[in-house]
Amino acid sequence: MEEGSQMRGKYVADISSIREAQARINSFIHKTPVLSSESLNAVSGRRLFFKCECFQKGGAFKFRGACNAVFSLDNDQAAKGVVTHSSGNHAAALSLAAKLRGIPAYIVIPKGAPKCKVENVMRYGGQVIWSEATMQSRESVASKVLQETGAVLLHPYNDGRIISGQGTLSLELLEQAPDIDTLIVPISGLFNYSSSAKLSISSFLFLHNLYYRFLFVLIFLIQKEKKINKIVGGGLVSGVALAAKSINPAIRVLAAEPRGANDAAQSKAAGRIITLPETNTIADGLRAFLGDCTWPIVRDLVDDIITVDDKEIIEAMKLCYEILKVVVEPSGAIGLAAVLSDSFKKNPALKNCSNIGIILSGGNVDLGGLWDSFRK
Amino acid sequence: MEEGSQMRGKYVADISSIREAQARINSFIHKTPVLSSESLNAVSGRRLFFKCECFQKGGAFKFRGACNAVFSLDNDQAAKGVVTHSSGNHAAALSLAAKLRGIPAYIVIPKGAPKCKVENVMRYGGQVIWSEATMQSRESVASKVLQETGAVLLHPYNDGRIISGQGTLSLELLEQAPDIDTLIVPISGLFNYSSSAKLSISSFLFLHNLYYRFLFVLIFLIQKEKKINKIVGGGLVSGVALAAKSINPAIRVLAAEPRGANDAAQSKAAGRIITLPETNTIADGLRAFLGDCTWPIVRDLVDDIITVDDKEIIEAMKLCYEILKVVVEPSGAIGLAAVLSDSFKKNPALKNCSNIGIILSGGNVDLGGLWDSFRK
Repeated sequence: MEEGSQMRGKYVADISSIREAQARINSFIHKTPVLSSESLNAVSGRRLFFKCECFQKGGAFKFRGACNAVFSLDNDQAAKGVVTHSSGNHAAALSLAAKLRGIPAYIVIPKGAPKCKVENVMRYGGQVIWSEATMQSRESVASKVLQETGAVLLHPYNDGRIISGQGTLSLELLEQAPDIDTLIVPISGLFNYSSSAKLSISSFLFLHNLYYRFLFVLIFLIQKEKKINKIVGGGLVSGVALAAKSINPAIRVLAAEPRGANDAAQSKAAGRIITLPETNTIADGLRAFLGDCTWPIVRDLVDDIITVDDKEIIEAMKLCYEILKVVVEPSGAIGLAAVLSDSFKKNPALKNCSNIGIILSGGNVDLGGLWDSFRK
Repeated sequence: MEEGSQMRGKYVADISSIREAQARINSFIHKTPVLSSESLNAVSGRRLFFKCECFQKGGAFKFRGACNAVFSLDNDQAAKGVVTHSSGNHAAALSLAAKLRGIPAYIVIPKGAPKCKVENVMRYGGQVIWSEATMQSRESVASKVLQETGAVLLHPYNDGRIISGQGTLSLELLEQAPDIDTLIVPISGLFNYSSSAKLSISSFLFLHNLYYRFLFVLIFLIQKEKKINKIVGGGLVSGVALAAKSINPAIRVLAAEPRGANDAAQSKAAGRIITLPETNTIADGLRAFLGDCTWPIVRDLVDDIITVDDKEIIEAMKLCYEILKVVVEPSGAIGLAAVLSDSFKKNPALKNCSNIGIILSGGNVDLGGLWDSFRK
């Protein structure tokens, strides 16, 4: 169990730690708006409330947890800085939180990481420290930084302070839309590698049809995104579930997960943490499976896990752009995908989910990449 | 001067009619959020407040005015329905407002109008009545509908009720962000036809390079949008200026206009309404130049008009997508384009514009068309 994750009651976070987090971070975060759409209500047959965390600082909910963790440190600890070797939205969020506190953030990034990711970290003042691409190298570089600086390692999700920070989203949302009886929260945004990996650069060159070339680029971008998204690891849904169930135990908390990386669904079914070795291998060490802090919360408080396929996620992304006018990343759209999926609509147990809060968790999709990819 | 535009003091609308409109439409409209971004503040060197009217019902501010006009009608008038022969965002907004009041909306649409436009009208329950593409045909079809039904013709901007409705945006925004000292409002979203018209379908077929094909499709989509956008005609800026100047006469109201259709800037310079015949011809009768209701307000209350070119608008659109995570149409992004333009930055008179409200006026860009265009 990570540092900073002492038990608070049954889990590493509880409603008090979440309320403390809210008081701590309130002046730093954006209170993100809740949008609704009659058209999407009609399509889904429910009332939907979209919590737009894509408008959060850093473009994703991650800033809540990072901010809480950074501002939880005592002055002596804080002065030495913070370290992470996850290089997704958490790294950017941690850099920004550290900048606001005026302390250094050391971000270990593997060589070959997407440029936009590195730029995000640097924009927010994070100090990039390069490692090789393997998890072994990343961990050893991070541990060297820890030794040299005395900084604090902050895990992206398996940490009570992070979970408490993400939980503030629940408090905010349930105040903004008190009628909510169901929450749908992304639990991981990893797409099915095996299907998309069939396409390679050489196959792209042979795709003369413009439509397929376009689709290829789309899938390529989603591939890139995936490495960012898999880092979710249950931190968001854990915090959201803890706060929501504490405020109103009757609220249903559902997690949405891509079918191609359904470790959370498998874990729930098995009653223990299941990791997917093949995904783990290809995702190159961004081992964002449920952690020992998040798993007990997911096991006990998440009522069900809805799995959706890539096609449904892309369709939901389009609806977010076209109807809501909101830019989301694939993992951001997965909650809407879940609510529109057959497995949701046809599930009799979910029939009386009437007022549904959907977390649009982030909007960090590289649209510039879309432009640029066509330029090449 | 149109029906419904009796003078209220000096102009066809005033702060009282705007407050009346607010009370009338408040329960029907979305209170749209105001977003901010440290990154865009840093780029512009000012504090920016983005009023997201792209999240308004119907995807644009137009619903405010349409809703006010429809709910201003007395019961006998209303029962006979409403008519318009402008087929942009106003038509969809009017259909929706009429649906909410439970009265018919007759929308005269020229054959060959973009499919998404027609679908929007139909989705909101408007009755589509086809005309030929000429303005003459549209007017004669509309007048026939008026005779047959006794319905009320509602002009998209040259009407006091419409202007009052759009003005409610000011009241809302200045309450949400009271520090604002400057407002930037789109006055028309028409792009420079002459430059983009050089590209034709045959030239598309000869563009083998993927990037140029992509650019072509982008320009094509903007072309399509243009017909919707030019309908702005000063209704928004008139309402916004009336309300803002009444609340705080020191507030600067700036209009943003594309360089290729700068009739407002030319009119301001000349002191009388200038129409651009060549634009008028190509835009096929969507004669959205300043009307006799909007012109006096623009002449007296708009402090300056910032013109920007297409390249600046596209760049601003990208920033809205990538940084704000908001989907805007070209005319929606023009306010941000203005604030980032050299002509704004280097203008000494605008140096002390510190807290700037930018109206993201609409988000009805046909992203599906982007997908579909590649499919063909």
